[in-house]
Amino acid sequence: MSDQKVYRLRLGTPENAAPVRLFGAGEAAPFNEGAASLPFSRREVQSRAAARGFVVELPMRNDEDIYGFGLQFHSLNHAGRRRFLKVNSDPVCDTGETHAPVPFYVSTAGYGLFVDTFRCATFYLGTNGERGSSKETAEPEQERKEFSEEALYALKRARNKRSVIIEIPHCAGVDLYFFEGPRLLDAVSRYNRFSGGGCLPPRWALGAWYRMYGGADQEAVLRLAEQFRRDKMPFDVIGLEPGWHSHRYSCSFTWDAALFPRPDELVERLKAQGYAVNLWEHAFVHPSSPLYETLEKHSGNYEVWGGLVPDLADSAARERFAAYHARAFVDAGVAGFKLDECDSSDFNPSNWSFPDCASFPSGLDGEQMHSAFGLLYQKTIEAAFAARGARTFGLARSSWALASPSPFALYSDLYEHRQFVRALVNAGFCGLLWAPEVRSCVSSEDFIRRLQTAVFSPLTLLNCWRIPNPPWFQTDTADNLAGIRMADSDTVTRITRQYLELRAALVPYLSAAFQRYHDEGVPPMRALALDYQEDERARAIDDEYLFGPDLLAAPVFAGEAGREVYLPQGEWRDFWTGAPVEGGRSFFVTAPLDRIPVYVKNESTVSKCFDFKRFWGYTICI
Amino acid sequence: MSDQKVYRLRLGTPENAAPVRLFGAGEAAPFNEGAASLPFSRREVQSRAAARGFVVELPMRNDEDIYGFGLQFHSLNHAGRRRFLKVNSDPVCDTGETHAPVPFYVSTAGYGLFVDTFRCATFYLGTNGERGSSKETAEPEQERKEFSEEALYALKRARNKRSVIIEIPHCAGVDLYFFEGPRLLDAVSRYNRFSGGGCLPPRWALGAWYRMYGGADQEAVLRLAEQFRRDKMPFDVIGLEPGWHSHRYSCSFTWDAALFPRPDELVERLKAQGYAVNLWEHAFVHPSSPLYETLEKHSGNYEVWGGLVPDLADSAARERFAAYHARAFVDAGVAGFKLDECDSSDFNPSNWSFPDCASFPSGLDGEQMHSAFGLLYQKTIEAAFAARGARTFGLARSSWALASPSPFALYSDLYEHRQFVRALVNAGFCGLLWAPEVRSCVSSEDFIRRLQTAVFSPLTLLNCWRIPNPPWFQTDTADNLAGIRMADSDTVTRITRQYLELRAALVPYLSAAFQRYHDEGVPPMRALALDYQEDERARAIDDEYLFGPDLLAAPVFAGEAGREVYLPQGEWRDFWTGAPVEGGRSFFVTAPLDRIPVYVKNESTVSKCFDFKRFWGYTICI
Repeated sequence: MSDQKVYRLRLGTPENAAPVRLFGAGEAAPFNEGAASLPFSRREVQSRAAARGFVVELPMRNDEDIYGFGLQFHSLNHAGRRRFLKVNSDPVCDTGETHAPVPFYVSTAGYGLFVDTFRCATFYLGTNGERGSSKETAEPEQERKEFSEEALYALKRARNKRSVIIEIPHCAGVDLYFFEGPRLLDAVSRYNRFSGGGCLPPRWALGAWYRMYGGADQEAVLRLAEQFRRDKMPFDVIGLEPGWHSHRYSCSFTWDAALFPRPDELVERLKAQGYAVNLWEHAFVHPSSPLYETLEKHSGNYEVWGGLVPDLADSAARERFAAYHARAFVDAGVAGFKLDECDSSDFNPSNWSFPDCASFPSGLDGEQMHSAFGLLYQKTIEAAFAARGARTFGLARSSWALASPSPFALYSDLYEHRQFVRALVNAGFCGLLWAPEVRSCVSSEDFIRRLQTAVFSPLTLLNCWRIPNPPWFQTDTADNLAGIRMADSDTVTRITRQYLELRAALVPYLSAAFQRYHDEGVPPMRALALDYQEDERARAIDDEYLFGPDLLAAPVFAGEAGREVYLPQGEWRDFWTGAPVEGGRSFFVTAPLDRIPVYVKNESTVSKCFDFKRFWGYTICI
Repeated sequence: MSDQKVYRLRLGTPENAAPVRLFGAGEAAPFNEGAASLPFSRREVQSRAAARGFVVELPMRNDEDIYGFGLQFHSLNHAGRRRFLKVNSDPVCDTGETHAPVPFYVSTAGYGLFVDTFRCATFYLGTNGERGSSKETAEPEQERKEFSEEALYALKRARNKRSVIIEIPHCAGVDLYFFEGPRLLDAVSRYNRFSGGGCLPPRWALGAWYRMYGGADQEAVLRLAEQFRRDKMPFDVIGLEPGWHSHRYSCSFTWDAALFPRPDELVERLKAQGYAVNLWEHAFVHPSSPLYETLEKHSGNYEVWGGLVPDLADSAARERFAAYHARAFVDAGVAGFKLDECDSSDFNPSNWSFPDCASFPSGLDGEQMHSAFGLLYQKTIEAAFAARGARTFGLARSSWALASPSPFALYSDLYEHRQFVRALVNAGFCGLLWAPEVRSCVSSEDFIRRLQTAVFSPLTLLNCWRIPNPPWFQTDTADNLAGIRMADSDTVTRITRQYLELRAALVPYLSAAFQRYHDEGVPPMRALALDYQEDERARAIDDEYLFGPDLLAAPVFAGEAGREVYLPQGEWRDFWTGAPVEGGRSFFVTAPLDRIPVYVKNESTVSKCFDFKRFWGYTICI
């Protein structure tokens, strides 16, 4: 019996290459009959080996809701759906594919399940009954309905006896880890603790990030960074995009001598102004790189963009990659990296990744490596800083299971504001952090609305790699390139500054939330389903979320004057006015451009006052 | 040495369940060194078995273009791309997934390759070089380019030494079939002959099809069918949608007694007016169906919509399913079926298909069955008619390899006019017929433009299951349901009638083209690449196609006053005016609403005159 209330069930013969072995994890007791408080017994978990792989079946109740599976953009509750967990940088359909799929879910039946695999498993969550199971309940004639498409499709959602079917391809066994509830939040917190506890970002990482124009040279970067200080735009991190490499696709990992002739001086001057410096890269190693020769024998058998694919599951490759980064960059004062292109797009006509049938010296094949690559890359970069006793925090385009302790937030070029809010809500179920970056905006309204979401998110990031001037000067890309200031730049600048100041003021509150993530596994940002599980309306909400222990954020989208907000039962206060708001109902709230609807839990135990007199003329206490 | 110039290469130990074994095929000589005239030797074809499956590698030239892979909606030339051949009813991305993927391609290097598998194989067509292959050619510094996204991405399209990599999962070997060129059309024709030769549709199937409103009862169907005759709308086929079943999702395969009290009389009266009758169904068998008990032991282990999934790879299931259809429907005079929902959507939240890990008594697993299901279903229905010595022609939502002889055209709900034209162009590479059905239209212009494409396609289909009145009465669904006639209905009716008459007049010409498809394997509709392979501009065209031996069709899309047309080198004539048009150039052609640009080859050997004096005031000779 384990205090952790985590139980391992070994079925068949698991593969060597699996997350627990590669990334490490906590203790788990054996899942013996009677040991665990789970909604099913050991013998109700069935499994079989087949030519395609290994299949597991679990009971599923008819009223069961299921959450998780990583950074999902398209749905919140996965009951009744099929989830295919493949890393994919452009998940346009609701299949389960995403930058960071995670073979972990939590169920309202009172448990969580982690499948310890790098295989692209498919989860059928109550989609198919067994042959014959509908025979008893079937009606001979179909009730006559209106002949609309919707009516026809509704008929297809019949409720058979359900089960969860999990197929893990290309293997003959797997370890399952069950996490006790009874509540969703219990199971999620246990999973995060089992993963090693949530990460603790340095305070600068909780501030505001600005990624510079891709065509900027050393002088242009310094000029803009200095201007931010003069203009009192409180950014904490300056990021450089691909242009700093002498060869970019694939990467040289050396500075471009023409654009950045004195990189050490650049980093020093940025640090002197209080900035942490972050560098873009991907892991594919160009023949001109000093890393090439040392990694050649420790790489996969196919190239990407004419570069090596380092086998980061091989400790030699990891150590060499980390040692180079420590020497070339950490020693020079760089604070972190943005790990791009590790999420192997399926949808690009060009060669964006290695084949699934690739092989690596460590024994992983291409499929396993696609799953593992993002988190292995994160661990490698973390090791470069650890080698110097330094902390880091960075950005990554891909992740997998057991990622809770990794000091990285996920990001993406993709940007449909509603989807990004849904991903923020979903990320909290599986130990992931998601940065809904502000990038291309269609208007200054759109920019402000996205910025508000970014300020109420794990990481506040303005990605300006396509524009030489800040977005508050001009949001239109062509006009920005032409240096034309937009008409409402003054207003947008003022609101931008206010929100960056607000983010800075929220850092202590956020630090406390992350400390709890680290110690107890409670996600700092999370779905209402986790705190209000019994409230079915709250459970279905995918466009509001808890931001830390005491705040509920409800982002507004461009083109809308406000929005419907649902507040769970209880007393709440308006974040901006302090006025009491009654919960247990939904209501329309008008949102002027400078207001994102945010509510404070009245039972809030934290008592902290933010002095916003300078900006909004009042003090906010939570 | 074979006269067919088709060569089989057996690698490893192929699976039992494979298209050639299940569907039958022609002769093939062994691919021995020196036997075949192919662009590579036997020993240049490499293969290996791995945990994920079986991998084949072939040489690929840097200038090689590759076509095929079935009903592709998103691209024409697949060189430089990855193709994942999975049956998917909603292929929104360019991954290779589609209703009817086919593991067959043709290459401008002078060969065709068919991979004899039901597995979801992945083809990497020159995407990745081997490790180290870029070392010699790589430049140390990247040429400085404008920092646009496009410029960065262009850098990623570097040209390494290329190869075709094919991964066939979950197996330890495969049979490859190589088809000699030297020309693309030679290889395609050989593939069609190897498949059994192209199908020969009955003449009525080459006419015009109308699918009735889903809510129509027996009287409403007869009323509209009679009205078509009075209005001189020359339809040849009347199709009934799901409403005729007493239970529809899953299917009962029995008439709904309330809506269709005298089905035999209905079919007889439609036949008496010269209509062929087509019935909608899918293959999933509801417990209330007379087919249920006889199929229960011959079905897969999971249900779909509470119905059995008959194992159509099991001859007992096929025979029982066919015998029932012969008795219940063929004997009553039904001419064919529309086989819906056999293309297992991945993108639907509800339960649209069986899991990949399903198992079937025949030994096929879910993955194999998904691939085989559409064509097995077609063969089963064909057998129901063959049992009565009757011919049929029908519609199906899914197909696979070796489908050339099957008397079915593919169709889909999906409808983006340009994509559907591209699919028409692509279908001709792989022995498929595609019906770009006219369904929901945004305007009467859109309706006419789609109708014109449908008239110049393998099957002219108006799918009106959502509207009780014909689309030439009203194209807007809500207004159609309300019985409101649109303002330009007279004009639209006139043009519709003209195009249906034109289709009727084209039947003899089409019959000749299908005869050649049957005898020689030459696709009746095909890409310009097949006839003008040496013309690089013609090879890239995905919105014009050859319609039979002598006509080139260039559909116009709603909102456009005309279009750019490219005509290959040679003398052409305008189909509508007979005026000579010079080829080897592209030009803009204005297209009034009643004109789809069509051109006649001047070297045309067929000489046939269509008298269109009544409609357009002149005679067309081709």
